[in-house]
Amino acid sequence: MKGEIPGRGEHPAAGGGLPARIFRLLIEYDGGAYCGWQRQRRGNRTIQGEIEAALHTMTGQRVNLAGSGRTDAGVHALGQVASFRCATRLDAQALALGLNSLTPPDIVVLDCQEALPGFHARFSARGKTYRYRLLNRPLPCAVGRQYAWHIHRPLHREAMSGELQSLLGTHDFKAFEGVGSPRTSTVRTIREALFVEEADGHWTLEISGDGFLKHMVRNIVGTLVWVGLGKMPPGSVAAVLAAGDRRRAGPTAPPQGLFLVRVDY
Amino acid sequence: MKGEIPGRGEHPAAGGGLPARIFRLLIEYDGGAYCGWQRQRRGNRTIQGEIEAALHTMTGQRVNLAGSGRTDAGVHALGQVASFRCATRLDAQALALGLNSLTPPDIVVLDCQEALPGFHARFSARGKTYRYRLLNRPLPCAVGRQYAWHIHRPLHREAMSGELQSLLGTHDFKAFEGVGSPRTSTVRTIREALFVEEADGHWTLEISGDGFLKHMVRNIVGTLVWVGLGKMPPGSVAAVLAAGDRRRAGPTAPPQGLFLVRVDY
Repeated sequence: MKGEIPGRGEHPAAGGGLPARIFRLLIEYDGGAYCGWQRQRRGNRTIQGEIEAALHTMTGQRVNLAGSGRTDAGVHALGQVASFRCATRLDAQALALGLNSLTPPDIVVLDCQEALPGFHARFSARGKTYRYRLLNRPLPCAVGRQYAWHIHRPLHREAMSGELQSLLGTHDFKAFEGVGSPRTSTVRTIREALFVEEADGHWTLEISGDGFLKHMVRNIVGTLVWVGLGKMPPGSVAAVLAAGDRRRAGPTAPPQGLFLVRVDY
Repeated sequence: MKGEIPGRGEHPAAGGGLPARIFRLLIEYDGGAYCGWQRQRRGNRTIQGEIEAALHTMTGQRVNLAGSGRTDAGVHALGQVASFRCATRLDAQALALGLNSLTPPDIVVLDCQEALPGFHARFSARGKTYRYRLLNRPLPCAVGRQYAWHIHRPLHREAMSGELQSLLGTHDFKAFEGVGSPRTSTVRTIREALFVEEADGHWTLEISGDGFLKHMVRNIVGTLVWVGLGKMPPGSVAAVLAAGDRRRAGPTAPPQGLFLVRVDY
């Protein structure tokens, strides 16, 4: 199609009579400056909004970008996946280059590929991995403070690790769901959950499962931290799951420690 | 002195007739929002200015905070050391707590101790360690982009490591000095210089010596990167040192990759 003259008034990268194709993006972002993933009216900056605006500039089309899931305001992603349908003369590589030149530096498109028909970033997803970073030491840090939750009192790490076993497997996680969630079923399967020690007082919770409810990871982390501080007794995660009552769980951990690491298909 | 009534009109934490003491601070900061360490007129935000303002609030005195050295605009510190003389009723722990509550979250006082008479953060310093972080991969990163210099073309790492040997020992580093430096001698001794590989395409140059000229680490890094990109031949560091000519060295690496890690006394 290269060199073909676009129709009168048509965007130069528009697809003309081409069939729509499905593209799949792998995206890293620093969520600190955004009101979350999902496009909003009223001009609040969102990741979806920024990428859709760039795709509109490049293709002349209003594409609807489907993320594997929404991330909340202030949450980061190392490997968010999103898909969109578009009839365009641009190939996947050109789309990636264009997106990285048009979006701000806190959004990076790591990869863009044409996907098989039927691929949808949300409906095709089979699992996700999240990471939550804690900083446990008396003083906060200055460098990297925007990527962890600082807990200044000592956490009882063994007690926290002991709670993780109760998360594994298939459970109704409604007690760990934030309000206003659009899900119909609150049953999810957690495949793996473990703490990894990093440098300088940082710990990371890595958690993988088939899917996560709204605020689920942050509510789990808040409960684990309450156990680690002795504000809730050991066994609380199992008790909260059994009771199915949000009011018995701990607080919602703040967003800046949370990273969507990977989406599996 | 606890409970003593301050003199009329005296700041409650002022020292009254107490002798001035010397305090030593260990400071971590994210330099991204600052015009460097050194206090400036005209209201530009600086690390020294923020800490001096907080000390004034706490003690009622205009203290002169001496850093181990100045860091440039945008440069970070994990372990900057600074000292000041002050006659105050506050002890070192109260000063640290007060500073951390009064300074913004991108400045953290990690430690405050009373120092021996004669201690001066700059004149007493015997050595420093800096770290410079490079990100070498085709795409930039979104998370942590404010803490590295992104080089998208592949760097020839062996060529760069091969240059480090020429830095070791005592040399006249005037070719790596930025303009406007206040130093009289440009001879410095480098004790150690090595590259360490981190995750995800990040590399770190760790460099220790008895002292560093203005822009010296950044000019060395710029020269190493030029060698790594093939823009300068192997042996360039030795040739630049021998020629003593700034115009033969590489560019000045950007500030956001540089960290003052440690000051030795």
